Amino acid sequence: MELLTSLASYAGIVGLMVAAWLYFSVRSESPGNQHMQEIGEAIRVGAMTFLRREYAILLWFEAAVFVLLWWQLAWATACAFLFGAICSMAAGFFGMTSATIANTRTSQAAKDGGEERALLVAFNGGAVMGLAVASLWLVGVGILFAMYGDVAHAKVINGFAMGASLIALFARVGGGIYTKAADVGSDLVGKVEAGIPEDDPRNPGVIADNVGDNVGDVAGMGADIFESYVGSLIASIAIAATLGAKQLHGLAAGHANPESVRTTLMMLPLVLAVIGLFASLAGIFSMRMLKGIGAQAALRYSTFVAAALFLLLALLLIFVSPASTAVWMAVLLGTIGGIAIGLITEYYTSGAPVRRVAEASKTGSATNIISGLAVGLESCALPILVICATIFVANAMAGLYGIGIAAVGMLATVGVTMTVDAYGPIADNAGGVSEMAELGPEVRAVTDGLDALGNTTAAIGKGFAIGSAALTALALFSAYAQAVNHARALAGHGHHPLSIQITDPTVVIGLFIGGVLPFVIGALTMTSVGKAAGEMVTEIRRQFREIPGLLEGKEGVKPDSARCVDISTRAALHEMIVPGLTAVISPVAVGILFGAEALGGMLAGATLSGVLLALMMANAGGAWDNAKKSIEKGDLVGEGKGTDAHHAAVVGDTVGDPFKDTSGPSMNILIKLMSIVSLVIAPLLV
Amino acid sequence: MELLTSLASYAGIVGLMVAAWLYFSVRSESPGNQHMQEIGEAIRVGAMTFLRREYAILLWFEAAVFVLLWWQLAWATACAFLFGAICSMAAGFFGMTSATIANTRTSQAAKDGGEERALLVAFNGGAVMGLAVASLWLVGVGILFAMYGDVAHAKVINGFAMGASLIALFARVGGGIYTKAADVGSDLVGKVEAGIPEDDPRNPGVIADNVGDNVGDVAGMGADIFESYVGSLIASIAIAATLGAKQLHGLAAGHANPESVRTTLMMLPLVLAVIGLFASLAGIFSMRMLKGIGAQAALRYSTFVAAALFLLLALLLIFVSPASTAVWMAVLLGTIGGIAIGLITEYYTSGAPVRRVAEASKTGSATNIISGLAVGLESCALPILVICATIFVANAMAGLYGIGIAAVGMLATVGVTMTVDAYGPIADNAGGVSEMAELGPEVRAVTDGLDALGNTTAAIGKGFAIGSAALTALALFSAYAQAVNHARALAGHGHHPLSIQITDPTVVIGLFIGGVLPFVIGALTMTSVGKAAGEMVTEIRRQFREIPGLLEGKEGVKPDSARCVDISTRAALHEMIVPGLTAVISPVAVGILFGAEALGGMLAGATLSGVLLALMMANAGGAWDNAKKSIEKGDLVGEGKGTDAHHAAVVGDTVGDPFKDTSGPSMNILIKLMSIVSLVIAPLLV
Repeated sequence: MELLTSLASYAGIVGLMVAAWLYFSVRSESPGNQHMQEIGEAIRVGAMTFLRREYAILLWFEAAVFVLLWWQLAWATACAFLFGAICSMAAGFFGMTSATIANTRTSQAAKDGGEERALLVAFNGGAVMGLAVASLWLVGVGILFAMYGDVAHAKVINGFAMGASLIALFARVGGGIYTKAADVGSDLVGKVEAGIPEDDPRNPGVIADNVGDNVGDVAGMGADIFESYVGSLIASIAIAATLGAKQLHGLAAGHANPESVRTTLMMLPLVLAVIGLFASLAGIFSMRMLKGIGAQAALRYSTFVAAALFLLLALLLIFVSPASTAVWMAVLLGTIGGIAIGLITEYYTSGAPVRRVAEASKTGSATNIISGLAVGLESCALPILVICATIFVANAMAGLYGIGIAAVGMLATVGVTMTVDAYGPIADNAGGVSEMAELGPEVRAVTDGLDALGNTTAAIGKGFAIGSAALTALALFSAYAQAVNHARALAGHGHHPLSIQITDPTVVIGLFIGGVLPFVIGALTMTSVGKAAGEMVTEIRRQFREIPGLLEGKEGVKPDSARCVDISTRAALHEMIVPGLTAVISPVAVGILFGAEALGGMLAGATLSGVLLALMMANAGGAWDNAKKSIEKGDLVGEGKGTDAHHAAVVGDTVGDPFKDTSGPSMNILIKLMSIVSLVIAPLLV
Repeated sequence: MELLTSLASYAGIVGLMVAAWLYFSVRSESPGNQHMQEIGEAIRVGAMTFLRREYAILLWFEAAVFVLLWWQLAWATACAFLFGAICSMAAGFFGMTSATIANTRTSQAAKDGGEERALLVAFNGGAVMGLAVASLWLVGVGILFAMYGDVAHAKVINGFAMGASLIALFARVGGGIYTKAADVGSDLVGKVEAGIPEDDPRNPGVIADNVGDNVGDVAGMGADIFESYVGSLIASIAIAATLGAKQLHGLAAGHANPESVRTTLMMLPLVLAVIGLFASLAGIFSMRMLKGIGAQAALRYSTFVAAALFLLLALLLIFVSPASTAVWMAVLLGTIGGIAIGLITEYYTSGAPVRRVAEASKTGSATNIISGLAVGLESCALPILVICATIFVANAMAGLYGIGIAAVGMLATVGVTMTVDAYGPIADNAGGVSEMAELGPEVRAVTDGLDALGNTTAAIGKGFAIGSAALTALALFSAYAQAVNHARALAGHGHHPLSIQITDPTVVIGLFIGGVLPFVIGALTMTSVGKAAGEMVTEIRRQFREIPGLLEGKEGVKPDSARCVDISTRAALHEMIVPGLTAVISPVAVGILFGAEALGGMLAGATLSGVLLALMMANAGGAWDNAKKSIEKGDLVGEGKGTDAHHAAVVGDTVGDPFKDTSGPSMNILIKLMSIVSLVIAPLLV
């Protein structure tokens, strides 16, 4: 186990090398004809410009936080913070680079080789992101763990998580606003007003919409999962570092020496990550064999292959270690919990509830919206029960450490789950490219099929991201409580341990303030999307009015796409600041003004209402989206594209857009970032 | 103070006598012409039939709970439960009786004497409900307090609160489903499909809609406030009964004897209620002088008169009592907090946010819905801060007792606030009657003005109901914790006091399960409204199709309104069962399965997410409603009735209907009922 730990960063480098190899193998595919290459280039330039400008703004934040951490805490923590931020940005950069070359190549592959070939190109394009997330993480934490992996210094590693978190929040919020401003804006004018199809090359907003898929669903999602993974690992290490003798005894296999058990438990998360990376590689390469059994089954089985292999290897390793196999049960439960939440999400975004929403569209937009909101509210119940069951069993098996390690178990095969996630926007882009480059109905049918599948995988990925965020936040919360206790003991407050009693009015105040924050962030992000989409609408209307021949589709007349890209970029970068600052500053303010107990209440309140809102928004959004698609496919007798029911369903889909792609996903990061900030500032709250 | 306490039930009887006198004075007004009387009679019969059938179903529940309480706890608690249920039902019955005779008389008064006269009739009609709530409560609790008002038996009174709560939940949920099924159903066919005005006599659903205003906004709201009032009083008594010597010392004026301070603190809530009733009477009668200054100002000042008088009398009384005037500060803060939440609600449902929603309607239904949801989410922030500030100061002034007594302070002038609330649906009905009886544009202008004002008072009333529910639930929560401790001490577990630590995984599980319950109840109630409205739509379409001459308005052709009333009644009674049972059974199940700590977490989680959802839904609904009204009034340049922007705003209004009148209000009761059930079963959780 020591060996695997010391090899962690090397394993990460191996992962990165495979990612590089996959990247070049995707790049060696044909990029398509001249027109496709132009479209691809426009998307690539738009996405990279956004990323560059976003990172330029974030540098200022990072510098400020770096100085604050150095001043108030330690040089090492500040450096770890910067390192975490850089790793997260690098993962986003690699993933985007790959996704933006894979889109046109997927279209071309669909043209040349049909579904199987296109699936493989899109999947491999996504795998670069998946492996970049799983590997960069290992490299970063591996190096830090080798330097600070002992009980006394483990808290330095928290800085790494905070760096990753800060980037993640801005990437998610900024990317989310970008993608939905472009999507909603171009749909409102193009589909609804002008009556031209989605992704029509005449629409000036289409390129921005395609760029948005990349910056939101690739870079944003990647940063989110990267952060969850880092958070769960850091929480587990922090909990293991402060376990008491009795707890260590309970987690020991037979009569193992308690301190060797502690060392094992501290190393275990990293070791599981290494195993998980290799299991993910197996899953990714299994796609070459699986691609023939149909796209949906192939994507699903590649995930299952990785999960099964991971669990088996983890069992073997824990069995020979000084730790009890009860720890493995917690890992198992996390993995099963993640899959269960994914399947529940799939049900709510493609099963009977979608038919209910589609049916309600017959009586108009209002009933469509009411039923979609009801589906969203209802869909919270089962995932919450799964999370509760996971907490209950993990805690019964291995105490608080069990909760942390269950989160690690849920995320260990992130290499492959993230691949499937990143596949979605690539397939979506490929559909757009096929339409814009007029590749014909056969190609469009292939890419549409892959795109529809991408919607389901995206919904499942969101459920998974929320579930893992919830467990991670809870584990970080435990780590926070122990860190405060530790700091108080050091400061001589040993007899005044942290006691976050819900009956304490200060804690109640924290609970309420924490609980309302996700609602405020939700309001801010939805308003931002509305504003930015409004600007986009005005600009697209202007182009249709002022560029002669554009709407009529006259040969050689092209829309000014760059201007729409610029509007989305500026809006997203401008609007991401307030929610981002709110998330960072509020825990610091509550901690300093009301103390560590109130901050504990705040974290609990934010986690609770954040998880609930995230589930509600993601699933309502998914259900509306697929209800619209189901009407378009003709699932409702007598209805179809262009009917009143379809118009009603389009309204639902548009409302669902910021729900599922902007506000909902922001919640995951909000709760994790607040927890990590609290964990980092814990030593100051004595 | 002893004197006032022993006179409490007599004060209640005086209040009831004034209510009876007001009832007869309203009844002596002219009921209008033959047609108006027929309409009024149809509404009255519909409302009373619903109430009778609802109460018949509730008798079974009451009997079952009565037997369970008798068997598991005590005969006295079971009887108090029954008594509470009967008082709550009686308040609903009196209020409805009055509201359903005041509607036609308000129309007639508008015809005969203009706004002033109509305002007074509607206000006095509402005052019967207001006084019935405030007085029946005093009679019931006064009698129980005289019998069980000592430290050892005070918990018997909890049964009274549970009885009131159980009725309240069913009344709110059933009434909410009834009113919105009728409203949404008749609007969808009448306004949207057939293009006839609201409240048009041709529409078969209009009578059901008017009945719904009564059963939802009069009986439902009355039961809600009745329950809050009882809950806050019972929590304060329970907290005072278990205060320690040190806390009693802190709340004493000078060197008063601790036990006499305890007696004072136990009596104080009841005494404040007596004062509040008389202050409310003063407020109600001040309307006779105020009615000339304009309806909005008159309603507002009548509330202020009562609040100021109440605070003054309370200060005098507390000043001469053995209790510290710090207690008065908590009362003051509660009163101010209630007014502040009302004003914030007014801002969000009639200020700048409404203009934002109206503006967003220009780009269609989707942007209208997005901006309304954003307003709802945003509107949670300030009320939560007010609640937090109230908790903070009340606790600093008078500990946990301060939180309970602040809730009492918020509710003490319920006689007048409830009057203003009940005025709303009477004015709304009067508008409907004027339209159906074709009283002409001048009368309609008067009743429309009073109705529009009723929308604002209804929104303020909802904010007030949520704020008081939050404080009441928190006070009940403290009472619950002390009751468990007390029971454990009696059972010899004195050294294992209740410790609801958020870091305890069991508590976290409770928190999550509690937190998701409001989402589930929200989903259930919204789905119920959708289903029932769907049935209503089918029935109204059938009548328009099958009754010859109905839609054309042929002389003598009448719709079959009774059938629509019956559909709403059956749907509401059927659909209220599941949410009601969920609320009662879930705390019992969690308490027994996971213990008192988990149940504590559950209450905190439910209170947090319930308050947030309630605020979000009530304010989003209010903003949508008034955005539509503002477009109809012509506030948007170039828009008005029948434009695309108006259609978009109607969609928002329809979505907002179940939000603000069904699901949102159910949350208040849900959190209070769960808290009271927990308090009652606390002795069993040792």
